Amino acid sequence: MASPKTIALDAMGGDHGPGVIVPGAALSLERHPALSFIFYGDESAINTALAAHPALAKKSRVVHTSIVVGMHDKPSQALRRSKGSSMWLPLQAVKDGEAHAAVSAGNTGALMAIAKLILRPIAGIERPALAALWPTTKSECIVLDVGANIGATASQLSDFALMGAAMARAIFHIEKPSVGLLNVGTEEVKGNEDVKAAHALLKSIELPLDYTGFVEGDQIGHGAVDVVVVEGFAGNIALKTAEGTARQIGVYLKGAMTSSLLSKLGALLARGGFRVLKDKMDPRRINGGTFLGLNGIAVKSHGGTDAYGFASAVDLAYEMADSGLIARLSSDIDVFHHKLAAAPPGSVQPVSAAK
Amino acid sequence: MASPKTIALDAMGGDHGPGVIVPGAALSLERHPALSFIFYGDESAINTALAAHPALAKKSRVVHTSIVVGMHDKPSQALRRSKGSSMWLPLQAVKDGEAHAAVSAGNTGALMAIAKLILRPIAGIERPALAALWPTTKSECIVLDVGANIGATASQLSDFALMGAAMARAIFHIEKPSVGLLNVGTEEVKGNEDVKAAHALLKSIELPLDYTGFVEGDQIGHGAVDVVVVEGFAGNIALKTAEGTARQIGVYLKGAMTSSLLSKLGALLARGGFRVLKDKMDPRRINGGTFLGLNGIAVKSHGGTDAYGFASAVDLAYEMADSGLIARLSSDIDVFHHKLAAAPPGSVQPVSAAK
Repeated sequence: MASPKTIALDAMGGDHGPGVIVPGAALSLERHPALSFIFYGDESAINTALAAHPALAKKSRVVHTSIVVGMHDKPSQALRRSKGSSMWLPLQAVKDGEAHAAVSAGNTGALMAIAKLILRPIAGIERPALAALWPTTKSECIVLDVGANIGATASQLSDFALMGAAMARAIFHIEKPSVGLLNVGTEEVKGNEDVKAAHALLKSIELPLDYTGFVEGDQIGHGAVDVVVVEGFAGNIALKTAEGTARQIGVYLKGAMTSSLLSKLGALLARGGFRVLKDKMDPRRINGGTFLGLNGIAVKSHGGTDAYGFASAVDLAYEMADSGLIARLSSDIDVFHHKLAAAPPGSVQPVSAAK
Repeated sequence: MASPKTIALDAMGGDHGPGVIVPGAALSLERHPALSFIFYGDESAINTALAAHPALAKKSRVVHTSIVVGMHDKPSQALRRSKGSSMWLPLQAVKDGEAHAAVSAGNTGALMAIAKLILRPIAGIERPALAALWPTTKSECIVLDVGANIGATASQLSDFALMGAAMARAIFHIEKPSVGLLNVGTEEVKGNEDVKAAHALLKSIELPLDYTGFVEGDQIGHGAVDVVVVEGFAGNIALKTAEGTARQIGVYLKGAMTSSLLSKLGALLARGGFRVLKDKMDPRRINGGTFLGLNGIAVKSHGGTDAYGFASAVDLAYEMADSGLIARLSSDIDVFHHKLAAAPPGSVQPVSAAK
């Protein structure tokens, strides 16, 4: 039997607030009856929304706050003004052990900054990362960092590998996930110094993951590996470019299917097939970036999503909370950094030797 | 009337050699009768292929060489061994004024290194870049650098902007092309230091282009700007990720259209529409990376393409050669670097002031 888990929700986050957050939680509760919720935000708006979901209302608690972080506040502004806000309190609840995970559809930069401040990075981790679930032709993979930081050293990229592997273990249930390093080619001479040094590190130190070497951009969607590691600048650009390309092809497809009467008729007949395609490409199906590397689970939902999409983010938070991920990751990071510190000079291949 | 142009071709480059290069040139000649060609490579193989294309044979000259750069040679190896090769000689012909442009479907890294050595960068340009044509929902845009270099300073990114604008002027016939800087967000605080400094530069110095600010990955395929500037690591990852996503959606679409009998029937009826889509997404239609910033035009075709695809690369070389691009670019770069050097300290906004 699944163990009971409490999820703390920022009811005011995203473009729609309680009108989407509450029915989203209700959908997730149908799938995971072991869940209960704490909603943070405008009490009367939340209670109004809960009135339509009696089963959810029974498993929910509402904590009122009138402080809300704006969708366009800069992280530094948000940090100063957000104490006691509907974004702050769920993270505080995770820290205090009242909830097992926090979910917000609010401002990404602010959420990252507040989560880092309240939950603190796991000992040994210099930089938490934002991980995205990425649909592949096989199933899904995890890509990190998709934009929490700009740039990453070899040791930080190696931490990302362990963080991604911990998430893959939690949600894909693979004990030794395959991990690739995103690069501009698969030969050892390719890439920048950090990527080459991370490659040397990941090859030479034994870790609880299956490091497969470099992967290129076109191998992400092909499902070449369970976890793709990249620093946040290129990772964010890859993610947005993939989203844009998918939309672009959608536009092409619509144009093509209305290019003649016969095509229109064919598309009508094939509408079941197009529904299959639409489901497959539905961004709501896989919704939720996860901040990895903190002492607690914080999931970011897309701000513009609907209840169906928000429920996916809650599902993800539940799976992560149910996995013992943080204890395992803390231990893996500890072992890695000890090995790194203990490695005799030269045993961790310097970049120049990797030519 | 179009002026006569001679294109020098590496007949041995790519996966198929003269069997693709020669019929590719024949196709391009049908579209551009002002073209003539010099083929470099195995004389008998080239002549055998030319025998099937008498109109092309009349406008072609063959220069024999038995030296060929391998598809997997490292650039440094290739540089040492490539003198007199079928890749080297076309570039030498451009330098010597015998040809207006060179095209090769061979090893990208080797071609870049040899082109740089023979043609030399335009005065003031520290780093030539590889530019890709990128299909958009509106038409096409130019993205550079897609992998010639790793990393770029603010001044180099600004050079890329001028180089991309020169290419846009040549092939899109827009006098003042719009140029965006690829970043992880559109706010001024986002991005790494080089990108922020380049943004400040491009905003403060008047250039013969319309600088529109930051663009994100999903805006490339949307056709937000004519030219997208990015350093080569992230640019290559963006390009490959877009290619991979397009292939991935192709797999989804095929699966969806064969998911039921009715869908199969519908897809059959709509086959005209699917042909429109296939044409639209045909990678052969837009084939050819261009090395920009050199004193001569060198175009790289995909190695695995067919005659139809190779003809697109030759068309591109022709359009570039016919445009007076290099003289104009040299002058633009000269003016830019003079302005940059003459700018009183503080007039070019430092990064910290851009907050």
